[in-house]
Amino acid sequence: MTQRATVPAPVQFCGAATGNWRVRRQVRVSGPPLAAVSHLDTSGNARSALWTLTGLASNLRYTDAAERADLLAVQAPLARPEARISVLIPIRKSAAWWAMAQDERLAIYRRGAHFRIGRDYLPAIARRLLHSRDLGEPFDFLTWFDFAPEHESDFDHMLERLRASEEWRFVDREIEFRLESA
Amino acid sequence: MTQRATVPAPVQFCGAATGNWRVRRQVRVSGPPLAAVSHLDTSGNARSALWTLTGLASNLRYTDAAERADLLAVQAPLARPEARISVLIPIRKSAAWWAMAQDERLAIYRRGAHFRIGRDYLPAIARRLLHSRDLGEPFDFLTWFDFAPEHESDFDHMLERLRASEEWRFVDREIEFRLESA
Repeated sequence: MTQRATVPAPVQFCGAATGNWRVRRQVRVSGPPLAAVSHLDTSGNARSALWTLTGLASNLRYTDAAERADLLAVQAPLARPEARISVLIPIRKSAAWWAMAQDERLAIYRRGAHFRIGRDYLPAIARRLLHSRDLGEPFDFLTWFDFAPEHESDFDHMLERLRASEEWRFVDREIEFRLESA
Repeated sequence: MTQRATVPAPVQFCGAATGNWRVRRQVRVSGPPLAAVSHLDTSGNARSALWTLTGLASNLRYTDAAERADLLAVQAPLARPEARISVLIPIRKSAAWWAMAQDERLAIYRRGAHFRIGRDYLPAIARRLLHSRDLGEPFDFLTWFDFAPEHESDFDHMLERLRASEEWRFVDREIEFRLESA
């Protein structure tokens, strides 16, 4: 069966000794670590990767139509020339999170103001969400961000607010990679 | 990376000349057909399959906590001795469906009374939903049902009601397999 045209192809992040992204910093925020690497490769050219993470763009799971319209009007695209810092944060949520029904997860997402927090940093912080869970991957989401160096403290602040939210009590594995183009 | 313990392994349905399910009837309801087969195999023993469909159990996408509690109290397990008819219905929804935000899809799901319709046939019709879309499969869902032969007309009635709903305007490929244990 060939890949369907309507579903974007999976994106692979290879942790390796070479690659198109240099790792400035790799931090285990929670849960088991990943082997430390000097580079991430998304070009498909990495040889002898220590590990590979795969995710794909999918349909919206919590965002409603009004929020989406708001985002589309305000957000910036990835890879602007000034966005010289990129960040990859793979995230896994606990079995307790996934066992909840849709309305229960949505209520926690909303109480934590997840949408509002991300919205506060637009358009400076551009982002992309990839889904991994249904691929049987070790993380549920691969979150990707980029921004100009002068916005790095804003980005740190955004992470602090998200990690303090009720939703993050259900995050049981999180690793942060600060990157620059190699 | 090994499969995570919290995510069930994918289930494969092989269309072949042999297998643990005999196909009583294969009907293209909408969209492109699949090659006609005499058997479906879910045992992993099928050789030279004409096609293979893969799906996996995932988290709830529309069901809320009250609905889930109601289902758990009423529904029957698969594979009761009297449930001698099984049905596999792979379903694909259109790009327009997937482009909608969560609240837009949920509203259509609810207006069509999808939950209510399925609920009306419990516990006679047992069912299981597998997700395929994020696996890059040709269908988005593999729906599986089983029931005693005396409930086949109830099952037909349930399908009629679902297919007449607004939600089904977004179904652009659907194939029905009526099966019995081989």
